[in-house]
Amino acid sequence: MADTLRIIPLGGLGEVGKNMMLFEFKDQLLVVDAGIMFPEFDMLGVDLVLPDFSYLRDHADEVAGVIISHGHEDHIGGLPYLLGDVLSADTPVYATPLALGLIRAKLSEHPELEGVDLRPVSAGGTVTIGPFEVEFLAITHSIPDGVGLAIKTNVGTVVHTGDFKFDYTPVRGAGPGFARLGQLGAQGVLVLLSDSTGAERAGHTPSESVIGPAFDQIFREAPGRVIVATFASLLSRVQQVIDAAQHHGRVVALAGYSMVKTAEIAKELGHLEAPDGLLVDLGEALKLPDRQVAIVTTGSQGQPEAALARMAEGTHRQIEVKPGDTIILSSTPIPGNEEEVARLINKLIARGAEVIYPPLATVHVSGHASQEELKLMLSLTKPKFFVPVHGELRHLHAHARLARQLGIADEDIFIIEDGAVLEFTAHRVKVKKEKVPAGNVYVHGKGVGDVGRRVISEREILGNNGFVLAIVPVHPKTGDITDKPELISRGFIFQPERGDLMDRAAAAVHNALKEGKVRQQQAIIDRTQGLLGRFFFEETKRKPMVLAIVTHRE
Amino acid sequence: MADTLRIIPLGGLGEVGKNMMLFEFKDQLLVVDAGIMFPEFDMLGVDLVLPDFSYLRDHADEVAGVIISHGHEDHIGGLPYLLGDVLSADTPVYATPLALGLIRAKLSEHPELEGVDLRPVSAGGTVTIGPFEVEFLAITHSIPDGVGLAIKTNVGTVVHTGDFKFDYTPVRGAGPGFARLGQLGAQGVLVLLSDSTGAERAGHTPSESVIGPAFDQIFREAPGRVIVATFASLLSRVQQVIDAAQHHGRVVALAGYSMVKTAEIAKELGHLEAPDGLLVDLGEALKLPDRQVAIVTTGSQGQPEAALARMAEGTHRQIEVKPGDTIILSSTPIPGNEEEVARLINKLIARGAEVIYPPLATVHVSGHASQEELKLMLSLTKPKFFVPVHGELRHLHAHARLARQLGIADEDIFIIEDGAVLEFTAHRVKVKKEKVPAGNVYVHGKGVGDVGRRVISEREILGNNGFVLAIVPVHPKTGDITDKPELISRGFIFQPERGDLMDRAAAAVHNALKEGKVRQQQAIIDRTQGLLGRFFFEETKRKPMVLAIVTHRE
Repeated sequence: MADTLRIIPLGGLGEVGKNMMLFEFKDQLLVVDAGIMFPEFDMLGVDLVLPDFSYLRDHADEVAGVIISHGHEDHIGGLPYLLGDVLSADTPVYATPLALGLIRAKLSEHPELEGVDLRPVSAGGTVTIGPFEVEFLAITHSIPDGVGLAIKTNVGTVVHTGDFKFDYTPVRGAGPGFARLGQLGAQGVLVLLSDSTGAERAGHTPSESVIGPAFDQIFREAPGRVIVATFASLLSRVQQVIDAAQHHGRVVALAGYSMVKTAEIAKELGHLEAPDGLLVDLGEALKLPDRQVAIVTTGSQGQPEAALARMAEGTHRQIEVKPGDTIILSSTPIPGNEEEVARLINKLIARGAEVIYPPLATVHVSGHASQEELKLMLSLTKPKFFVPVHGELRHLHAHARLARQLGIADEDIFIIEDGAVLEFTAHRVKVKKEKVPAGNVYVHGKGVGDVGRRVISEREILGNNGFVLAIVPVHPKTGDITDKPELISRGFIFQPERGDLMDRAAAAVHNALKEGKVRQQQAIIDRTQGLLGRFFFEETKRKPMVLAIVTHRE
Repeated sequence: MADTLRIIPLGGLGEVGKNMMLFEFKDQLLVVDAGIMFPEFDMLGVDLVLPDFSYLRDHADEVAGVIISHGHEDHIGGLPYLLGDVLSADTPVYATPLALGLIRAKLSEHPELEGVDLRPVSAGGTVTIGPFEVEFLAITHSIPDGVGLAIKTNVGTVVHTGDFKFDYTPVRGAGPGFARLGQLGAQGVLVLLSDSTGAERAGHTPSESVIGPAFDQIFREAPGRVIVATFASLLSRVQQVIDAAQHHGRVVALAGYSMVKTAEIAKELGHLEAPDGLLVDLGEALKLPDRQVAIVTTGSQGQPEAALARMAEGTHRQIEVKPGDTIILSSTPIPGNEEEVARLINKLIARGAEVIYPPLATVHVSGHASQEELKLMLSLTKPKFFVPVHGELRHLHAHARLARQLGIADEDIFIIEDGAVLEFTAHRVKVKKEKVPAGNVYVHGKGVGDVGRRVISEREILGNNGFVLAIVPVHPKTGDITDKPELISRGFIFQPERGDLMDRAAAAVHNALKEGKVRQQQAIIDRTQGLLGRFFFEETKRKPMVLAIVTHRE
C-alpha cells in the first residue's frame, strides 16, 4: 500500500483547525499548535475552550513533536493542558524564539512542566521530526516571529500558512518570504492549508506601517497624556508607540500585567527597541508633566479585569483618567465584544478623555490576509489540492470561491470540519468516513470537561429565570401535607414588587396536595414542581427552575 | 418671568432620547415617540426595556399629546405600556398613516386600548397640540413615511430630525425636504436635535436604490429559489425584491408573521406595489419550479424564533433549505447580534445554500445619516444651539465634533444624558440641576419593573456558576446536626465527572457543625453556606450560589 498522509483539524469553536492541526504519516503524529478559544455568548461561566484531545490521548506514543506557529493564545494557550495531561513529558516542542519566550512564561506557572523539551527554530530553517521534514516559512502577522510551514513527506509537500497577512513594509524585521513560497510552488505543492479569517474582506490588508502617521499626528497634537490600548502581543504596535513617543518628547510606560510581561520578553529577544531612558516605570512616568507621557496598556477588548477597564471604572490604582487625556483604542472589537468595547469607550469619554478608535482614525489594521493576499498565496504556491482552514464555514466558503476564481477545480477544494480526516497519497485525496472526536472541551475554574451540555442548559434556565425552592412539610407518619410549603426564590422576581404571588403559589400547592391526598414522597415532589411551574408561568410568563423537597413536620 | 421651553430625553439604554423625547412648555407636555429597546448581553432574561415613565406618570394630566416620528419598534413599542398604564386614555396620538397602521396592529392585541385617539398627520402638515405648533418634515429613513419635526413656541423653533438619512433617490416616494429645512434655517432655528447614530461614519450613506442592481444580478444568476431576509419594516427593500422578482420571472411569497402583517398594512397604504399575481401565498409559491420563486422573510438578525432561524435549524414547517437556494441577508448585524448572525450564516451554508451578505455584495445600506449628511443637516438648519441625540456618548461626541468643525461654539453644544432637563428661553439655555427619573425599566414576561439590579445579579451568579442546596438535618430537640447534609446542585458541575466532591463537602459540613457544637438555626445556615462556598471555591475555583436549609430529623 502506498504511503498516506493524514491531515486532521481540531479546535477553534468552528473556526476549523484554528487551535490545532494534526499530521499523521507512517504511524507518527505531528501536532501543529495547541491553542484555546474564549467562550461564546452562550457558554455560560466557561473560562476557556480547549480542543478535544481524545485522539491525541489515545495516540500519545505516536506523537513525534509539537510545532507552534506563533505566540498567540489561540495557538499556545492549550500547551499546559496538552503537555500536562495528554502527551509524554519529553515530547519536543518547536517554536520561534518569541513564541518560546511566551511559552516559557506560561509554563513557569506550572512547576510540574519544568523539564519540557523546548527547541528554537527560525524562518528559513528546517527540522526533521519523525518522518516529517518541516521547513519554517517567513510570514507576517500581528505578532512578530510567526511562521508558516512546509511539511514534506514522500507523499508531497504541504504548505500550512498559519495565521498570516502579506505585509510588504512591516514595522520591524523582514517581510514575508514571497520568493521561497514561489519556489515551493514551482517545485510542486500537494496541498495548501491557508488562513481564511479575512476571506470575506476585499482588497489587501493595509501594512502595519500605516499606523505610524496616525500615531504621529495624535502624539503631536495631544494636550496631555496619550494612553494607547492594544494587544500585548502586537509588539509592532508597541514599537510604533515607542517611536511616536520618541519623536514628540514623551516617555513610554507600560500598564497591565501581560503588557509588561510580554514587552520584557520581546525586549530581551530584540523585538522591541527603545533608547535608554525612554521606557520608564509607570510610577515614574506619572510624576512627569502630562505632555511628556505615553502609556501602553491592555484591555482594548473591554475585558473587565484589564487595566483600561479599571481606568474607565475609576478603580485603577495608579491612573485616573481626566480631561486632557487622549486614549487610543488601537484594535477593533473581536466579534462578541462589541457591546463591552462600546461601554468602555463611553465610560472613558464620560471621564473627560478624548477617545480615538477605528474608524475615527487609522489606528488599527487587521493581522489577517484579505482576498487579494489570499489569491497571491494560492498563486505563489499553486497547490494541487486546497483546504481553507482557520475560519468558520462562511469564511471557508468565501476562500473556496477565491480559489475557484483562480481556476482550482471544485473537486480539488476540501471544506472540512474539525475532526475530519483528509487522507492523501501523492495523487489522490479522500475524506475518511470516520471522524476523530472533535467536540469543544470547556474549562471552568479548575474543571476541564466537567461542564457540558446539561450543566450549561441548567445555567441557561437559572440565568434567565432564576429558581424557586419549595420546602413541603409532610407528616412523618401519615405523609399528609401539614402546612403551606415555604417558598424561597433567587433570580426570579423582586418579591416586594409582586405582593402576594408567593403566598398564593404556596396556598395552591397546599390545597392541591391536601385535596388530592398525595402522600407518596416522589409524587408530592412531582406534583409540587409541576403545579408551581404552571402557576408561575400563568402568573408571570416566566419559567423559573422549580425544585421541591419534603421535610417532616407534624 | 419669560416663557421657558424644557426638553427632556428618555430611554434608549444610553442612546440618549432614542425611545422618547419630552417637550414642556406653559405647563403642558408633548411626548415624541414611545419606543422600546432590546436587552443588552447582561440583562439576563429580560424581554425588552422601557423608558422610565415616572415623570410622565406624575404629570399625566399635563400631557397634551403624543407624536410618533416613524413606525419602528424603538419608537412605537412602548405605546401599549404608556397608554395603558400611564397616560389618560383620551390622550391623542399623532403619526403618519404607515406608523398609525403599525400602531393599530400593535394596539389590537390590547383590547383595553380600543378607543385610543389616533390622528393621522403627514409631512408638510402642521398641527397644534396644546401650546405647541408642530410641523412635520419630510425625511428619509429605513422605513417609509417617517418625519422630522419643527416644534414651534414663542421661545423659538426646535427642529428634531428623528431617525434620518438624506436619500436623494429613495426607492419609492419623495426625498427629504431639503428646501423646507433650509427655509426653517433661514427663518431661525433655536435648537437642532439630530440623529447621531451614524456620526462615526465618514462620507454619505448610500441611497437605498444602490441595492437594486445587486438584487438584479443575484436574481438573474440564482439557479434556484432566492430567499431574502430583511427587516419587516424595511418596505423599500421588500419593494426592491418585488421589482427584481418581476424582472426575472419570479413570484414573491412572504414568510414570517411580522413580514406578512407589515406588508399587508403597507400594501393597503400604497407603500408596496406589486402587479396582480406577483405576490402569492407561500404554499402556492413552493409548488412552482424553484427558478420562479423569491421569498422574503424575517430573521436577518439571527433571532432564534424567526422564520430564517427555523429554516437554518430545519424546523420551518414549509421551507427546507437545500442546495440551489440563494439566501440574501439584506441587513447588517445590530451590535450584540454578530455571533448569532454568524452562526445563522454557517448553518444555512451547511445546508447547501449559497449565502450572500455584506460585505460580499451591496445588499444592505444603513438607514442613518453619515457625517456628510449630518453636516448638511446642521448647515441647512443653522441652529443657535445644538443637541446631538439618538446615540451613545461616543456618537454624541463624534456628532459634536462635526458641529464644532462647522463653527458652532462649544458652549452652544449640549451633550446631555437621559433624564437631563434642558431649559431654553429665546436667548439662553441651561441644563437644570435636577434630573428626571430615567432608569431602564425591564420587562420580563408579564412583569414590568420587577426585575432589577438585585434579581439580575442573582441571575448572573446562577447563570455562570449554578447553585448548591444543602439540606442540613438537625435534631428537633437538641439542635445538633444528626447526619451529613444532603447536597443538591444545578448548573454547577456534572457530578459523575467529579466523583466524591459532594460527599467530601457534605462530610466537611457535618464535622464542622458537630465539632463546633453549632445549634442555633441561623448559625447552622450561615456556617454551612460559608463553609461550602469556601470549600467549592478551593476545590473548583468556581463560586456557585449556596443555599442551606435546616430540617428536623432525630
